[in-house]
Amino acid sequence: MSTQLFGNVLVIGAGLIGGSLAKAIREQSLAAKVVGFGRNQQSLQQGVELGVLDAACSDLDIGIAEADLIVLGVPTLTVGDYVKRIAEHKKPSAIVTDVASVKGDVEQAVIKALGQMPSWFVLGHPIAGSEASGITASNAQLFEHHKVIVTPVEGTDVDALSKVESLWQQVGADVVQMDVDRHDRVLAATSHVPHALAFSLVDTLCNMDEHDDVFRFAAGGFRDFTRIASSHPVMWHDIMLANKSAVIDVLHDFQTTLKNLEKMIESDDSESMLAMFEKAKSARDEFAERLAARKRKNISESIE
Amino acid sequence: MSTQLFGNVLVIGAGLIGGSLAKAIREQSLAAKVVGFGRNQQSLQQGVELGVLDAACSDLDIGIAEADLIVLGVPTLTVGDYVKRIAEHKKPSAIVTDVASVKGDVEQAVIKALGQMPSWFVLGHPIAGSEASGITASNAQLFEHHKVIVTPVEGTDVDALSKVESLWQQVGADVVQMDVDRHDRVLAATSHVPHALAFSLVDTLCNMDEHDDVFRFAAGGFRDFTRIASSHPVMWHDIMLANKSAVIDVLHDFQTTLKNLEKMIESDDSESMLAMFEKAKSARDEFAERLAARKRKNISESIE
Repeated sequence: MSTQLFGNVLVIGAGLIGGSLAKAIREQSLAAKVVGFGRNQQSLQQGVELGVLDAACSDLDIGIAEADLIVLGVPTLTVGDYVKRIAEHKKPSAIVTDVASVKGDVEQAVIKALGQMPSWFVLGHPIAGSEASGITASNAQLFEHHKVIVTPVEGTDVDALSKVESLWQQVGADVVQMDVDRHDRVLAATSHVPHALAFSLVDTLCNMDEHDDVFRFAAGGFRDFTRIASSHPVMWHDIMLANKSAVIDVLHDFQTTLKNLEKMIESDDSESMLAMFEKAKSARDEFAERLAARKRKNISESIE
Repeated sequence: MSTQLFGNVLVIGAGLIGGSLAKAIREQSLAAKVVGFGRNQQSLQQGVELGVLDAACSDLDIGIAEADLIVLGVPTLTVGDYVKRIAEHKKPSAIVTDVASVKGDVEQAVIKALGQMPSWFVLGHPIAGSEASGITASNAQLFEHHKVIVTPVEGTDVDALSKVESLWQQVGADVVQMDVDRHDRVLAATSHVPHALAFSLVDTLCNMDEHDDVFRFAAGGFRDFTRIASSHPVMWHDIMLANKSAVIDVLHDFQTTLKNLEKMIESDDSESMLAMFEKAKSARDEFAERLAARKRKNISESIE
């Protein structure tokens, strides 16, 4: 069913996301060869042993020169250095894409390094993840039934964009285009700010006199609400800074809403409080139904 | 294994909690008879048909006069009126308890109605619930492996307290004593404020220009974080007002923490942000482990 899309694929920074994509590419024969590059040689070797990668790349410049698709799964802070080396050594026809959670600061890092966004760089973000991390947690099915947002900019090559979209579709994802700013605001709202709230709530509770009882008597609702506070501190620190302006914007709106709710409670303003809770419940119920319907649809499609 | 603890039990306001307790009492023969009273005769009849109740009580004063244990599952706003009628008609030996989520305002309502907390009234709160509601959702296993907090006050009869504790233990709960203020602060922290945050977040997102995309691209993390925003608006409105002062206190602490996090993000204060996220993650991980261990322990106990 699948056709080979690329010759050689190079994954730079093969963690959970890069590794899962590599594994899915190999399982579906979407490329002739998938090699990985990373600082940790041992984990790359594990990747090869687990069948995630065909080989580990030991000389990056050679790896770049041989690649037809390069996937960047590295911290945004290092994107500038990598993209300079890529621009220097890549084949003219090679395509580059990335998988970072924030797109604006990757765009800025590339522009800072190269003076402009090159036509061969397709910004992308698979909305998938897991509490596990690292190449050993790679899962070829990770992207099935998940959204991947690509954020083309002015000058992005249409064929490069189309090939990156095909790749994500072949590994089971539902691909959507969005502009960079909108992507970063939407993700701030649905993911980054909720993480900020969960970390802040748990921190607040830790500082209460009654903190022992607080954690002793918390139950399932609290467990679900704070699950994301168990996420990787360094990764989330990086995301908050990478998406600073959108996160701060949404945080401001949230704080205004919360302050209003506080006033409603203080002044026994039942009418406003009920209106707010009912609106929120109905939006949340509708979202949950839509998510469930998406899952049912995906399941019935995969049966056909 | 179980022994009969009471002659007649009267449940006033038989919804999910009152109905589930009634059903558990009947299944374990903890009382000679369980009758229910409520405004909705049809739902009481359904309760009888489903085996939740032995009978529906049509004359409240007679029901009170015949009861050895009265369980109040009514909105706190109506507690004063009920407790006056109970005080007037009850047997001298009868015990009364309640199941409300906030204890301070039930105490205040009783004191307002009767001049003081009578020795026969045991304040209690089973920390259990479900997205379903009403007597038809009654589940005799609802309290198994759940905490019930009883909050005795000065003058609460020791035997009455002990009988109420035995009842909850017999239906599978883990009973703990706490003072009223501490209970209300702990519940504000673990349940009431998280609900306020979830409602506020969903409301904030509804008001964003990108709200369609926001709900379209939200995934599993957001679903878990906002699950409690699908809760019953009227019930949560009542709880926010009933526990006003503790909720406002915890909300203030939370807002201070969130404002600090915002400043860390704005000023690139990596050190403080990492320290906060790591502390929160470690507290949340510890809580999750403890909850899982509690479940494992309960499961192995129930197997023995």
